[in-house]
Amino acid sequence: MSNGADLHVYESTTEQGTSWTVVSPIVFTYKVTESLGLLDPSNDTLLLGHIRDPQQLEALRNSISTKPLRRFVVMDQTVYNLYGCQLTDYFEARNVLYRILPLPTTEENKSMELVMRILEEMSLVANTGKTHVEEPLECNNIAVIKKNEFQLVQVKGTWKRKTGNNFNKNLKGRVSAAKIYESTTEQGTSWTVVSPIVFTYKVTESLGLLDPSNDTLLLGHIRDPQQLEALRNSISTKPLRRFVVMDQTVYNLYGCQLTDYFEARNVLYRILPLPTTEENKSMELVMRILEEVHKFSLDRRTEPIIAIGGGVCLDVVGLAASLYRRRTPYIRVPTTLLSYVDASVGAKTGVNFANCKNKLGGYIPPVAAFLDRSFLQTVSRRHISNGLAEMLKMALMKHRGLFELLETNGRFLLDSKFQSDSGLQGDNKDAASVSTRMAIETMLEELAPNLWEDDLDRLVDFGHLISPELEMKVLPSLLHGEAVNIDMSYMVYVARERGLMTEEEKLRIIGCMVGLELPVWHQDINMALVQQSLCERLKHSGGLVRMPLPIGLGHAEIYNDTGDDTLYRAFEKWCDELRPQ
Amino acid sequence: MSNGADLHVYESTTEQGTSWTVVSPIVFTYKVTESLGLLDPSNDTLLLGHIRDPQQLEALRNSISTKPLRRFVVMDQTVYNLYGCQLTDYFEARNVLYRILPLPTTEENKSMELVMRILEEMSLVANTGKTHVEEPLECNNIAVIKKNEFQLVQVKGTWKRKTGNNFNKNLKGRVSAAKIYESTTEQGTSWTVVSPIVFTYKVTESLGLLDPSNDTLLLGHIRDPQQLEALRNSISTKPLRRFVVMDQTVYNLYGCQLTDYFEARNVLYRILPLPTTEENKSMELVMRILEEVHKFSLDRRTEPIIAIGGGVCLDVVGLAASLYRRRTPYIRVPTTLLSYVDASVGAKTGVNFANCKNKLGGYIPPVAAFLDRSFLQTVSRRHISNGLAEMLKMALMKHRGLFELLETNGRFLLDSKFQSDSGLQGDNKDAASVSTRMAIETMLEELAPNLWEDDLDRLVDFGHLISPELEMKVLPSLLHGEAVNIDMSYMVYVARERGLMTEEEKLRIIGCMVGLELPVWHQDINMALVQQSLCERLKHSGGLVRMPLPIGLGHAEIYNDTGDDTLYRAFEKWCDELRPQ
Repeated sequence: MSNGADLHVYESTTEQGTSWTVVSPIVFTYKVTESLGLLDPSNDTLLLGHIRDPQQLEALRNSISTKPLRRFVVMDQTVYNLYGCQLTDYFEARNVLYRILPLPTTEENKSMELVMRILEEMSLVANTGKTHVEEPLECNNIAVIKKNEFQLVQVKGTWKRKTGNNFNKNLKGRVSAAKIYESTTEQGTSWTVVSPIVFTYKVTESLGLLDPSNDTLLLGHIRDPQQLEALRNSISTKPLRRFVVMDQTVYNLYGCQLTDYFEARNVLYRILPLPTTEENKSMELVMRILEEVHKFSLDRRTEPIIAIGGGVCLDVVGLAASLYRRRTPYIRVPTTLLSYVDASVGAKTGVNFANCKNKLGGYIPPVAAFLDRSFLQTVSRRHISNGLAEMLKMALMKHRGLFELLETNGRFLLDSKFQSDSGLQGDNKDAASVSTRMAIETMLEELAPNLWEDDLDRLVDFGHLISPELEMKVLPSLLHGEAVNIDMSYMVYVARERGLMTEEEKLRIIGCMVGLELPVWHQDINMALVQQSLCERLKHSGGLVRMPLPIGLGHAEIYNDTGDDTLYRAFEKWCDELRPQ
Repeated sequence: MSNGADLHVYESTTEQGTSWTVVSPIVFTYKVTESLGLLDPSNDTLLLGHIRDPQQLEALRNSISTKPLRRFVVMDQTVYNLYGCQLTDYFEARNVLYRILPLPTTEENKSMELVMRILEEMSLVANTGKTHVEEPLECNNIAVIKKNEFQLVQVKGTWKRKTGNNFNKNLKGRVSAAKIYESTTEQGTSWTVVSPIVFTYKVTESLGLLDPSNDTLLLGHIRDPQQLEALRNSISTKPLRRFVVMDQTVYNLYGCQLTDYFEARNVLYRILPLPTTEENKSMELVMRILEEVHKFSLDRRTEPIIAIGGGVCLDVVGLAASLYRRRTPYIRVPTTLLSYVDASVGAKTGVNFANCKNKLGGYIPPVAAFLDRSFLQTVSRRHISNGLAEMLKMALMKHRGLFELLETNGRFLLDSKFQSDSGLQGDNKDAASVSTRMAIETMLEELAPNLWEDDLDRLVDFGHLISPELEMKVLPSLLHGEAVNIDMSYMVYVARERGLMTEEEKLRIIGCMVGLELPVWHQDINMALVQQSLCERLKHSGGLVRMPLPIGLGHAEIYNDTGDDTLYRAFEKWCDELRPQ
């Protein structure tokens, strides 16, 4: 539309340089057309009235039956209610591929948000070819008399509902992320409350947590730099108070060090050592902790409860803390490799109930998890293997680099118990810190978007389909990570059977497992147990088995269509190749 | 810039009407200027080089020292790191009011979001006159080596962290609302996880919940119309299963009706009647429920637990359900007026512990609360008064209309027990339904934006500052609402003493309370109890007393500065005027 002939450029040169002034006329052309009966199918103005070139117009009129036109329509909601059906009929009669977007185009809604809404719809139509308006919602037999969507705005401490119609944008007030939808029928009014709660927590690596010069254990959960500074300054005059639950075994090893730490830091403390074993993981233990917490007169605003121990300890304390005064902050300090890479980074709390693992609990994350690899030096070699199984899980699901690191440096990690600051073959970084960091990062990636496990498709469930049944069946002979590894080993054969990996990849994975000194086969797994486990899974996973399977090395997807024959052939091969002779 | 002389309009008339084609040339003029040393304070090109009119230029050069220029600058982040200081110096030297907005203007960020970001800043500068760039954040002693903000994007079932720099917009994937912030120092890496969880629940009025023709109790919690339709169709062939906890007293009154309802609806059910009294409100009762739930083999995906009873029943069942399998949906059916307007609409669950009310619990809302006023016909007159106290609370805090309704129709509501469908004086609507609806709506307004009580300033705490101490002291002689009303009555005198209402308004409120047959004074309240209560309050409210006080009728604010003398004078007057002779 630009007319190149009328373009002028004026040049002027000074000491500072040259300046060009460009004068460019752009010609806008548009039509304003009267046309009665725009929605009458015999009238093609709506479709073609904008075309000025008679030849092009003729061509389009001829091609319309074979090559349908596509039209995107934004229609005011009120107008849509009146004329939507007529427009739909018009497009249908004219063989048009269409998308009608009804919008509440009121003065109050006249905002960039509405523009973005339209742009999103346009790009959806462009990308997916999606056309036609959605089905209008069924009104569900009962006539809705009134429907309203409310924002909530706080003015001087009082929250007020505001609809789009009376929402005054100049109103100075805090707008909540929550909304209330009201719908009134003859039967009465129904309100739907939608309220997002934001959970925020820190996961922090810190070597030497019990070194008195390190204040992470006391203050590492505080995110506001000013508050942190104030506390650092007041600590000598106004002692901090801390309540700690420590696993009994950990207490025997580190209790004195913790006491010295608190004494050096002028902290008023109570350390409660507890036998946090799988057998004791019950509501009774939670109540035991709560009684002591209450005796301590804990201030839930400023005194987070600290849990130091393995997964059981972290889970039980997490549940106790989230129950106390409807939510008391707590801090997780894992002392085993398994809890370091698993329980510490998630939101799950829980105890066993009625002979079922973690049947009672919640999803309240800690305010912080502090990760100190130093604790791992007192963990037995078998328990290091145990934790390596969960790391391998993340590697197989998401991270080829981590897999190769475990494959190459597994033995070194077992020998050094994640203590040494060197040993990564072929690289100058530290195997212990790099591998744990990769494991944490991949775990957080999967957990953060699905903190409450509303999405049932979870890659982190790999190794956890058959292992719960196996673990309960042979308790206490297998550790959790060992049972998980046996499950993973079988699933690798399933993946291989489905053609998701090569024979070489399969052998590399099994080889890596063996290198990590993890069991890859177990005599108590048979097809009956597999079937029973998958049945149980179906029951609690919304009717789909949702089986995570590795694809090659470091990649995975969820499958719902693994046939019984595949499971059986994989099982046969798995036994043939891995059953000890 | 438009040149009116070149505008042409072409008119053409057909049978369908007239069409005008408008041809309008717009002339764009812009300068491209070379200039070395743009940031040299002696060079004014950056400030004035765009001005083409020499007279205007001269005028601006003369006025710059007295009337500072204002400039808004968007600068690429990398460029800002290199030249930000120089630009700041330039503006300072030139006496310019400026705002520099550094932005990561990379190809990946080239989106409407960035445009909106700039527009927001521009309007902030325009509205507030805010200028100058913010102070850079202090780095808090420890040198931060690397800082990253990650989005989480799901591709084929795998979540991936993406920074602004590697976030590919063409990537087809689901973006999570959660974020991970990573910061690496010499001490190690720290991740901050921010993950919003959205709670959604329905509060639905429905008369005749136990009438077999009403399916609200069974299906009213389902929001998806298609799922609802499917369930309605399958109910005769595939019976629904429901587990119900019912208060023992309510069971004696309505147990048979509920059984008939389930039988008529072909439901497989288990009704557990329990003595849900304040004395029994404990974790033992929760465990008792959980054992029965477990025996019932409840499917947590499709079988919500139903609680029918007063506040204690709803609180205890809520806690049990939220613990079972880390969260099982539950439904609240209040049968007392107090729970109808209070416990039913919120998220709180809880039990007493260590002689403290609701010391253990959580904030997990029900999937639905079903409100049926019919249950109130079996509630005693005193318990109707009890509930009216919480309604009066909301009226005084937020709703003058509700206050006047209670003032005028209180006696009628007491007499009719909220059953009659008329009685609202001066209007043709129903006092019972209008007043309860107002109470629910005002409660939801305050609860929805603060579901987890993160904001400690809560108007709904009115009447709950001194009443907990009083209630525990005289237990069981006062009902909850009665204790709340005595607290409110005293606070009205405090408000009056502070000049927040007239004597007439004060007398109207006390008169209304008396009309609702609520106690307005109690011999066990003395200044020591008031002081002790406010002390307790301070401890759990972050160091502020946060006292909600009514201002006139139907309006309120939170106060932190009520002096002891005011409290004392109010107390003296309160006793003088309201102590029975």
